[in-house]
Amino acid sequence: MDQASIRRAVLGRLPLYLQYLHALPKTPDARISATTIAKDLDLGEVQVRKDLQAVSGSGRPKIGYDVAELTKQIEDALDIRDCYDCIIAGAGKLGRALLDYGGFVDFGVRVVAAFDPDPDKRGITAEGKEILPLERMPSFCKERAIRIGIITAPRSQAQSVCDLMVESGIQAIWNFAPEKITAPDHVLIHNENLALSLAFLKLKMSQND
Amino acid sequence: MDQASIRRAVLGRLPLYLQYLHALPKTPDARISATTIAKDLDLGEVQVRKDLQAVSGSGRPKIGYDVAELTKQIEDALDIRDCYDCIIAGAGKLGRALLDYGGFVDFGVRVVAAFDPDPDKRGITAEGKEILPLERMPSFCKERAIRIGIITAPRSQAQSVCDLMVESGIQAIWNFAPEKITAPDHVLIHNENLALSLAFLKLKMSQND
Repeated sequence: MDQASIRRAVLGRLPLYLQYLHALPKTPDARISATTIAKDLDLGEVQVRKDLQAVSGSGRPKIGYDVAELTKQIEDALDIRDCYDCIIAGAGKLGRALLDYGGFVDFGVRVVAAFDPDPDKRGITAEGKEILPLERMPSFCKERAIRIGIITAPRSQAQSVCDLMVESGIQAIWNFAPEKITAPDHVLIHNENLALSLAFLKLKMSQND
Repeated sequence: MDQASIRRAVLGRLPLYLQYLHALPKTPDARISATTIAKDLDLGEVQVRKDLQAVSGSGRPKIGYDVAELTKQIEDALDIRDCYDCIIAGAGKLGRALLDYGGFVDFGVRVVAAFDPDPDKRGITAEGKEILPLERMPSFCKERAIRIGIITAPRSQAQSVCDLMVESGIQAIWNFAPEKITAPDHVLIHNENLALSLAFLKLKMSQND
């Protein structure tokens, strides 16, 4: 199925299905029904059926989906096999954690370096990744045609490092700073708020009481 | 509006609205329409109207919502003002980043300590948080009635620290390990997969080309 034909809203839910499928026990020839997926993920069954139909023609009534095949079809739709390089601005604790995190490669992203204004943070990490001065970012990114950037800088520096990323040719920004950042229309921004995820977990727990 | 009367699916979307409202420029008496929110968040307008109606009766036709009031109403619905303590299992880079992260308090969660089997990781962090031996977890949590735990342990230890959390009385687990963990039915598990967020950003970028 052609990627471009899958609606954005469906694409937005695919990571959720993929995460769910990855978390299932690895059993050969395992099958799963849209009903089970809908129930486990607390989604409407009609919606799950439609979403999965958009990426896979292989679900069969009363038999369900082959887990391995459906996983591969979603991975293809999400294009996680093409590997892209990516840089980080802000080498504080979170920045360094993401810099050395090994799990991004499985999803087609290689974090290659971080940039920080603080000379004390410069150097090479345990995983051999460089932490460089901020002003090196434009030449570094242009030489390597890097188009993805992660902002883990403090709130007060978020917009200025965003501007530097745009100058460096970055086209997609994953922003962990709790600050609204703005960039030209051709630059995608995804704001991450980890605290809200935790707040929501807390809320669900208190409702269980 | 009574929290219990808000459907789970709506609650699941509230953090998204709240994050959006928090990121708006701070202007006194600012107003915003459901249409604008729907457009900016790429959601259906009917759904946004229904969601906001579930938490707020204060939207007015052609005038919209008062941003400050709507923010407060969503915060109330999410119950982010009640502060809970929380612990972390796994004091690697990500664990230590979350341990010292200041932003959780704004959403009603205080991360108070981390636990790790490695004696080299023990001690006190820059923010004065303790990193303790794993075996201290049950008594620590029981003394303080801690019910929320974060797993940032390696994949191979995820299930064993999950079991230890259950033994310690933890009722909600935020799992960053890329591993399926299981716990008794009364324990909530929220699996976080940061790599999928990045994969999705990459995909959207490549579709922009």
